[in-house]
Amino acid sequence: MIAVLKNGVSKQQVETLITWFKGKGLDVHISEGKFQTILGLIGDTSKVDIDLLNGLEIIETVKRISDPFKSANRKFHPDDTVIDIGGIKLGGGNFQFIAGPCSVESHDQILEVATKVKQAGANLLRGGAFKPRTSPYDFQGLKGQGLELLKEAKVKTGMPIVTEIMNINTLDLFEDVDVIQVGARNMQNFDLLKELGHTNKVILLKRGLANTMKELLMSAEYIMAGGNENIILCERGIRSFETYTRNTLDLSAVPMLKELSHLPVVVDPSHATGMARLVRPMALAAVAAGADGLMIEVHNDPPHALCDGAQSITPEEFESIAQQVKKVREVIKG
Amino acid sequence: MIAVLKNGVSKQQVETLITWFKGKGLDVHISEGKFQTILGLIGDTSKVDIDLLNGLEIIETVKRISDPFKSANRKFHPDDTVIDIGGIKLGGGNFQFIAGPCSVESHDQILEVATKVKQAGANLLRGGAFKPRTSPYDFQGLKGQGLELLKEAKVKTGMPIVTEIMNINTLDLFEDVDVIQVGARNMQNFDLLKELGHTNKVILLKRGLANTMKELLMSAEYIMAGGNENIILCERGIRSFETYTRNTLDLSAVPMLKELSHLPVVVDPSHATGMARLVRPMALAAVAAGADGLMIEVHNDPPHALCDGAQSITPEEFESIAQQVKKVREVIKG
Amino acid sequence: MIAVLKNGVSKQQVETLITWFKGKGLDVHISEGKFQTILGLIGDTSKVDIDLLNGLEIIETVKRISDPFKSANRKFHPDDTVIDIGGIKLGGGNFQFIAGPCSVESHDQILEVATKVKQAGANLLRGGAFKPRTSPYDFQGLKGQGLELLKEAKVKTGMPIVTEIMNINTLDLFEDVDVIQVGARNMQNFDLLKELGHTNKVILLKRGLANTMKELLMSAEYIMAGGNENIILCERGIRSFETYTRNTLDLSAVPMLKELSHLPVVVDPSHATGMARLVRPMALAAVAAGADGLMIEVHNDPPHALCDGAQSITPEEFESIAQQVKKVREVIKG
Amino acid sequence: MIAVLKNGVSKQQVETLITWFKGKGLDVHISEGKFQTILGLIGDTSKVDIDLLNGLEIIETVKRISDPFKSANRKFHPDDTVIDIGGIKLGGGNFQFIAGPCSVESHDQILEVATKVKQAGANLLRGGAFKPRTSPYDFQGLKGQGLELLKEAKVKTGMPIVTEIMNINTLDLFEDVDVIQVGARNMQNFDLLKELGHTNKVILLKRGLANTMKELLMSAEYIMAGGNENIILCERGIRSFETYTRNTLDLSAVPMLKELSHLPVVVDPSHATGMARLVRPMALAAVAAGADGLMIEVHNDPPHALCDGAQSITPEEFESIAQQVKKVREVIKG
Repeated sequence: MIAVLKNGVSKQQVETLITWFKGKGLDVHISEGKFQTILGLIGDTSKVDIDLLNGLEIIETVKRISDPFKSANRKFHPDDTVIDIGGIKLGGGNFQFIAGPCSVESHDQILEVATKVKQAGANLLRGGAFKPRTSPYDFQGLKGQGLELLKEAKVKTGMPIVTEIMNINTLDLFEDVDVIQVGARNMQNFDLLKELGHTNKVILLKRGLANTMKELLMSAEYIMAGGNENIILCERGIRSFETYTRNTLDLSAVPMLKELSHLPVVVDPSHATGMARLVRPMALAAVAAGADGLMIEVHNDPPHALCDGAQSITPEEFESIAQQVKKVREVIKG
Repeated sequence: MIAVLKNGVSKQQVETLITWFKGKGLDVHISEGKFQTILGLIGDTSKVDIDLLNGLEIIETVKRISDPFKSANRKFHPDDTVIDIGGIKLGGGNFQFIAGPCSVESHDQILEVATKVKQAGANLLRGGAFKPRTSPYDFQGLKGQGLELLKEAKVKTGMPIVTEIMNINTLDLFEDVDVIQVGARNMQNFDLLKELGHTNKVILLKRGLANTMKELLMSAEYIMAGGNENIILCERGIRSFETYTRNTLDLSAVPMLKELSHLPVVVDPSHATGMARLVRPMALAAVAAGADGLMIEVHNDPPHALCDGAQSITPEEFESIAQQVKKVREVIKG
Repeated sequence: MIAVLKNGVSKQQVETLITWFKGKGLDVHISEGKFQTILGLIGDTSKVDIDLLNGLEIIETVKRISDPFKSANRKFHPDDTVIDIGGIKLGGGNFQFIAGPCSVESHDQILEVATKVKQAGANLLRGGAFKPRTSPYDFQGLKGQGLELLKEAKVKTGMPIVTEIMNINTLDLFEDVDVIQVGARNMQNFDLLKELGHTNKVILLKRGLANTMKELLMSAEYIMAGGNENIILCERGIRSFETYTRNTLDLSAVPMLKELSHLPVVVDPSHATGMARLVRPMALAAVAAGADGLMIEVHNDPPHALCDGAQSITPEEFESIAQQVKKVREVIKG
Repeated sequence: MIAVLKNGVSKQQVETLITWFKGKGLDVHISEGKFQTILGLIGDTSKVDIDLLNGLEIIETVKRISDPFKSANRKFHPDDTVIDIGGIKLGGGNFQFIAGPCSVESHDQILEVATKVKQAGANLLRGGAFKPRTSPYDFQGLKGQGLELLKEAKVKTGMPIVTEIMNINTLDLFEDVDVIQVGARNMQNFDLLKELGHTNKVILLKRGLANTMKELLMSAEYIMAGGNENIILCERGIRSFETYTRNTLDLSAVPMLKELSHLPVVVDPSHATGMARLVRPMALAAVAAGADGLMIEVHNDPPHALCDGAQSITPEEFESIAQQVKKVREVIKG
């Protein structure tokens, strides 16, 4: 961390500041120029509140050199994290498909989709029970009943299940859920993250629509600070000025996040684009960029899906995509 | 709502679709062209799920003509809503200052700031007890203790208080709070919004960093759908590519939101810019644009504030700004 | 095109408007509802000025159903355009690498890089002579001299050359240039586009940093309206709130642009990310997404490049990437 | 400027780098920590190419402390620049209205609008002759003939004229033009900027849709580097994810630009919002934020304007706005 002091700061003010930094356990290196004094702060600066420093009268600007996330930082954990989901491994070279319908709609629907995506190569079943919708008048999911149907599908197919939590008060219902998803809109619901940090569940943390990669890692840090290190990061598109696709899938985030962090990164091409016909090219591109997994919406009857039908593909299309994905993985593994 | 059908759709498919629309209580007007058939849907389309329609095979594109929010819509409620906060009126020509520190830090601090901002013209006291911070290592607020100190300040100064909720489980603690703030990061925490819809508290709803005006109104609709119509909208800056200011204050949103909705709109220039020296020009600009109130961070000792000191102004600056604001209000009223 | 009329418009006003539309050669279909009258305009609406319509007092809103570009539109030209560059074909299944240094620096440099990238699989040589730089104090390219060196490299290696034009007054110098590049900052330099429309050169048109896909196609339309249909579109990253990578590479644009238009689409992963270590994953992802070519900065000595060294790779890395790219192409063709 | 070196850099590499910096006339201050060596570079760093440094193998990151613009920088020119336009002063406390139609359409139109806006308080007449339009099929302006009509209006009303240049080859036609406007799409047309730097015309430089304030100042620097210091900056809205208004007017840019630079700043609320009914609130807000002038589209018959009618106001509305603007100016001047 670098602190640039304002012109004309008194010697005593500088000394007071340096003493304060040393009290935080930091080493301080001073560069005194004709016009500017620069302090280099060395040590664990992740706990220094940058806003507080910027408010000090004698400081012109403060810039971080190292990142304020620690547990999620690859610098301190050079090896890839491998997540174990009921025996299914993800990360560190282990690639997985997470597939299933946007919403759980009925016993028959979830079972049919689950059986078909399993045959097609998916090892993890996704399905929404609690649905975050922009409008209060849109379908909000089957909620608790949806979770029950998912669990039945898990029993019948043996696939671990992935589903979204929207409210910490429903946590008890997630006891048999294998991967709890935190949606884009809740990425900075810090109280939810803290609570999930006290569980031992695998958390699939989606990047917020307007959140930087570093903020995503700070949100992972919230969970990890509570003791839960089982986190899968998920890129699902950010909001830009382009409106032709629903979101702008930021695939550069895949190699960048894997460089900054040891956590695995999966990509959700269905939500990113909002269009079924873009799922294949974006799924292949995500894998070529190095993703550790893909989360894809598959529906047995997309035109009649109760939500997001426009972005769902059929089990047959999923199977065809999955086969191409495997071949692209072969190429990039070398 | 307009639905454009694909080329080559059969007569029977069109009829099935029309029957379905009519079942939803909508009138359907058909324009048949050589190349395209267009259906005009007339009636209450707010409950039609646009994603579902887009997923239907025979539809090329669907566009809304009217907005999907109803309770918040000025079309159906032409008169300005006036919010009553313990006798203090906001909206419909009633302008208010909401002032106070970013965080409640101590008994003396909150009482000193409260007394001073009251003298300077503020009628409502703000102060954070639960603080949403990007990093788990930053100061998270005094929480319950902070709320107690705020309530003391309310008793001593007679000012209604405004403070942020982050978790629906703490709602009981907000019994004596006059205005519950929903922060930008929780604007689409739909479960929180639904719960607040079942209270009779005034809700100050901040626009999310990447949320459109229409999404803000849809979030207000979530609260109103539960029966609580006491909502104040708050523009506090959006995220753009410009990084020199912390956010980009979107002042066009003030007249736009007031045109789209009957709810009052306040502006928070402190969070929007993140710089104390921009508070004055942006506060004046917000008022000139027609804001119904201003929410301003004031600290008795900004350089030592425990959070966001960089954007806090002193009570003396606040008083000077408040006086200019009143003069600008005179001009635009008349 | 759909025009929604305001409430309370008189019969005569509607008739005047309809007559005006018919005068433009359009068919008009009327849907009269209780609250709203909607006109469906059918025919060639590409020449209707949407801003003009929005300004008419009796109109509430106008929405395009079909796109305002015509020559570039796949609807009217279903087959892929194949561009012939001195015998090298690009588009319609023909994939090409365009490689070379950011800037032409010297005779030896351009010749060495050209020879090496040719060996490694590139068929087209890029090199900047006129360089658009944000600062007037940064290196602006060797200009005319740079073009001469490029042409020498073309003669010696037989590779067609690609280089950027910044000013229509230098067009004479580009006589022996095979592909003229229009940079992102000039994508809406309409006078330049018009002039290029009167040449028979192949134009590589880069998407602007804040331009939508449809605006890119409208800029292509400017060139095509002049008679020149030899256009290659180039996605090179857009500007979003994320600053960790220089730009946000929008790979969804590849399949989207190819759906909207018959023109070929290449991707420039070097400028998009600004980091050499992201060139490989983003190049592979671009190809997996369906790109017709890649434009990659290659320098014999990246650390000493006079511009953009940070994003240049060595010829050896290029060769290794090119080989993987070919394998990914096999998969997606297959 | 701060350069952070990578771990494990050899002593000799550091010395070579320091010698290189000293050769550029910079003082170098070294902070050696256990993990990192930081170099503080002091002196005129505006001519150091930051991309070049980032490309060096031994450097981890480079950050600017001071800004790379010099002539436009308030640090080196603390006093406000006052622009003299044929005797009309703008900047340094002198406020001006620039008003007139989007496009010059006819002799009668421009003369009528000019006469009326002059009576209403405008001292400068705007009018477009060369029009940048997204579509090649939209009205492109009367071009040379439009300039002639503008000049006639200048002669008859005595008002200096402001009009846009799109192509350096038309510069001769601008001899009697008082203020040459560079539009948003040409803000980084560097060759155009360079040429205008060799004239002695006043240049009104509009901020690009996706350009930061610092890039705007770098573009001003291009003109100033050529010797022309008569520059007026113009904020006209940036592109964000919000699409309800055409652009997002960034009013924080007004006080920020005036802090960073000594150049005057005007605001164009017409283009920023694209809606006539937003011109008044945004004009008042711009003035409250400290703008040195307003550029407003006024048309004698907005519904029949040949371009941008939707955002034009009548002379009567302009007069009413101008009177309120003057009163807000009184308030903020104190």
